[in-house]
Amino acid sequence: MSVEHRYPRRVQFHETDLAGIVHFSWYFKYMEEAEHALWRSVGMSIVPPSRDWGLPRVNANIDFKAPLKFEDEFEVHVKVDVIGRRSLRYALTILRGPEVMATGPMTSAAVTRDADGRVRSIDVPEAVRSRLT
Amino acid sequence: MSVEHRYPRRVQFHETDLAGIVHFSWYFKYMEEAEHALWRSVGMSIVPPSRDWGLPRVNANIDFKAPLKFEDEFEVHVKVDVIGRRSLRYALTILRGPEVMATGPMTSAAVTRDADGRVRSIDVPEAVRSRLT
Amino acid sequence: MSVEHRYPRRVQFHETDLAGIVHFSWYFKYMEEAEHALWRSVGMSIVPPSRDWGLPRVNANIDFKAPLKFEDEFEVHVKVDVIGRRSLRYALTILRGPEVMATGPMTSAAVTRDADGRVRSIDVPEAVRSRLT
Amino acid sequence: MSVEHRYPRRVQFHETDLAGIVHFSWYFKYMEEAEHALWRSVGMSIVPPSRDWGLPRVNANIDFKAPLKFEDEFEVHVKVDVIGRRSLRYALTILRGPEVMATGPMTSAAVTRDADGRVRSIDVPEAVRSRLT
Repeated sequence: MSVEHRYPRRVQFHETDLAGIVHFSWYFKYMEEAEHALWRSVGMSIVPPSRDWGLPRVNANIDFKAPLKFEDEFEVHVKVDVIGRRSLRYALTILRGPEVMATGPMTSAAVTRDADGRVRSIDVPEAVRSRLT
Repeated sequence: MSVEHRYPRRVQFHETDLAGIVHFSWYFKYMEEAEHALWRSVGMSIVPPSRDWGLPRVNANIDFKAPLKFEDEFEVHVKVDVIGRRSLRYALTILRGPEVMATGPMTSAAVTRDADGRVRSIDVPEAVRSRLT
Repeated sequence: MSVEHRYPRRVQFHETDLAGIVHFSWYFKYMEEAEHALWRSVGMSIVPPSRDWGLPRVNANIDFKAPLKFEDEFEVHVKVDVIGRRSLRYALTILRGPEVMATGPMTSAAVTRDADGRVRSIDVPEAVRSRLT
Repeated sequence: MSVEHRYPRRVQFHETDLAGIVHFSWYFKYMEEAEHALWRSVGMSIVPPSRDWGLPRVNANIDFKAPLKFEDEFEVHVKVDVIGRRSLRYALTILRGPEVMATGPMTSAAVTRDADGRVRSIDVPEAVRSRLT
């Protein structure tokens, strides 16, 4: 069983563009906000105080179904879909009431930074794996 | 043969996040900036003065390969990859020198807005098709 | 007596920069989000369905006192400070618990757009004035 | 005599809002981009490799005169206006051709971070002072 979370949100004015709808780049931010809320919901922060690792995105693949508008209330549903040895995949859906506005996976890979500053792939930390499962 | 364009850019401070690298949502904006520069390069604007149609995104699927950092100079290479009857797909690559930082397609669909405000799929306008081919 | 509102918010990851704190441009967005929440609290939207007027900013003058950090919970306190004949001034304060993080006024002017597209100063609509007083 | 710089820029689609003009928060980012370009023009980076100090904003006070629109080409003129012992003030103007779109000062204070993480005011580093004069 994997962890999931529902994150409520309202569209802000500065998130719209001249087409009168939310700019598509904001869907990725909404989804990330939901991801971090999911982490908080299981007692973790995506930026722990003394972290020596991180989880940068390696892929984001979103289908845009319908436009969000100013002051719309919506919900991001985020679920940990796959926990691989070295990566996490989230399944994400943005809903306005029953209507699916956008959907798709985002994948992050566990990395650390070596003494020389180079980024290196590592296993997903066990503490993370256990809380997200 | 399809149209292509190279768009030069520098990373700005406000595009970075606390991990010290460009926030992933910016890659989508960089790619869109390149798309609009490509349109200008063939004498068009993505927002023509009296438009009765638009090209909202229907999908964006980006692989993130390496992090961009503050003041990095990079280039977005954008190519019209597929011109379907009702949609356009761009192939996009972000390069820092020879290094591929991110790559992937973004797809837009041609739509118009009916008198009642509803969005409806239409054919890609012929003037657009001919200039992007 | 003027209208006021308290708007709760949490710092999101994408609002931070490489200095590890919220980018200063976000303080203006936080304040605007609070302004629009104040309007909703008195039954109005800053973007009414069939508006023929607007309230663009003419000045924003913010003092930055202390840095906000990722996942900080804070509150924006917004008050309609002055309702002039043709403009509105808000007094805004960002607080993290008891600590003042930023403070300052933002001023907007009432305008309409003439048939030829030119922006022209107008009196603050009476319906707005009465609800904000 | 103080250092100055002219920074050319074009309005991007994602910088506009549903009012069809650039969101006011972007004026602050445009001005910061110009500030950092000025630093590069005198051989410095606002984020030097091994910095133990920073220059966070303490005030930004912008008057908005006229709206920028999608694909507008404009210029930010930035000048080091005052170099105090512990702070810098820039005079900034955004111009579209001869027209002043926005103007105002932004002030930053020199700080360092003590071993316990507390931010403390310091003198503007001499290397900075000499290059900006």
